[in-house]
Amino acid sequence: MSRLRVQNFAVSIDGFGTGAGLTFESPFGHAGHRLHEWYFDTRFWRSKVGDDGGSSGVDDVFAQQIDIGFGAEIMGRGKFGPQAGPWSDLGTDDEWRGWWGPNPPFHTPVFVLTHHARPSIEMEGGTTFHFVDASPEEALELARSAAGELDVRLGGGPSTVRAFLAAGLVDVMHIVQVPILLGRGVRLWDGLEGLESRYAVESVSSPSGVTHMTFTRR
Amino acid sequence: MSRLRVQNFAVSIDGFGTGAGLTFESPFGHAGHRLHEWYFDTRFWRSKVGDDGGSSGVDDVFAQQIDIGFGAEIMGRGKFGPQAGPWSDLGTDDEWRGWWGPNPPFHTPVFVLTHHARPSIEMEGGTTFHFVDASPEEALELARSAAGELDVRLGGGPSTVRAFLAAGLVDVMHIVQVPILLGRGVRLWDGLEGLESRYAVESVSSPSGVTHMTFTRR
Repeated sequence: MSRLRVQNFAVSIDGFGTGAGLTFESPFGHAGHRLHEWYFDTRFWRSKVGDDGGSSGVDDVFAQQIDIGFGAEIMGRGKFGPQAGPWSDLGTDDEWRGWWGPNPPFHTPVFVLTHHARPSIEMEGGTTFHFVDASPEEALELARSAAGELDVRLGGGPSTVRAFLAAGLVDVMHIVQVPILLGRGVRLWDGLEGLESRYAVESVSSPSGVTHMTFTRR
Repeated sequence: MSRLRVQNFAVSIDGFGTGAGLTFESPFGHAGHRLHEWYFDTRFWRSKVGDDGGSSGVDDVFAQQIDIGFGAEIMGRGKFGPQAGPWSDLGTDDEWRGWWGPNPPFHTPVFVLTHHARPSIEMEGGTTFHFVDASPEEALELARSAAGELDVRLGGGPSTVRAFLAAGLVDVMHIVQVPILLGRGVRLWDGLEGLESRYAVESVSSPSGVTHMTFTRR
């Protein structure tokens, strides 16, 4: 059965899933790359960018999960780009096709949640961005139809993950807690009192310093 | 050299060090005992209350630190009791001597931070509560004088720990992250952006489900 999964979603100790001040140059705002250094040190990531080496331990096996078993992704607009408001007011932003270049790493349909309609964009490598003004339930139904028997990835950002958690739609969630304090940005955990009652929660710390938390729906 | 240490301070995944709604019956508000179940399952705690058994692993060795090497404690008023405002306005609260009965577990001078003066209270077993209207620096100087060569324990609550962290006074901090989401209460981590730059941070998860984080000043 198709599951909705969050994989490799990093937060600071103080619970921020992204920093403050997102721009075209800084997709995570003042957090920079600090939430993802653990990921860049894995063999999984290094092999993607053509480098040798990298760790093969717990960070690496979790990292690999991002590519395993997915037939579609749902993301918030803030993951697609730093813009806000109607696309047509944004000048050159009509040309914006995400942070990932001509061949994005999704290779499936990607449903971008936005209140502002825009034609779909077909990219190289099987990724198509669809822009949908939909509730979490509606977006999941669209993505499930596209994914077939495969799982749906909930790609973030923090507000989007939180909305799907609040709606009770997430089956599996992998959170990576990074030992930094961002102090500002967008929090993941707000308004989720008692979430643990609906999940089996495991934690495992890594020699890299991060702690992997998995939430598996009971 | 005498250090200022935080030991066994528990927070939820969403960063709350105590719940909402502190009362005489509920020192941690709606959190109840949930932040401290890991502690009650240790051999260290069980032996204190006259029970056999309990775990002897990572939870237990950290738990033991609460009693090792301290000559004084500093605590916020909220750890001493749920009252606010002048003690003389509180009727029977003049009789309030903390949550711990006639022989509290401190066995040293304890400096309770409060804006409202009150005579010191000498308890059985070596604990004396002193009520001081002092800055973190002033309180630490008082406690260091009382502790001699021994360390000073910073006992909480979250606002007090945060104030001493912000003032750069904490040498060692042991935080226990418990896999629950409290949703409301008092946060530990607010306003501490970049704290990790001043500390070596380690994390180790326990089979009990909690994760121990230690911050050692560089």
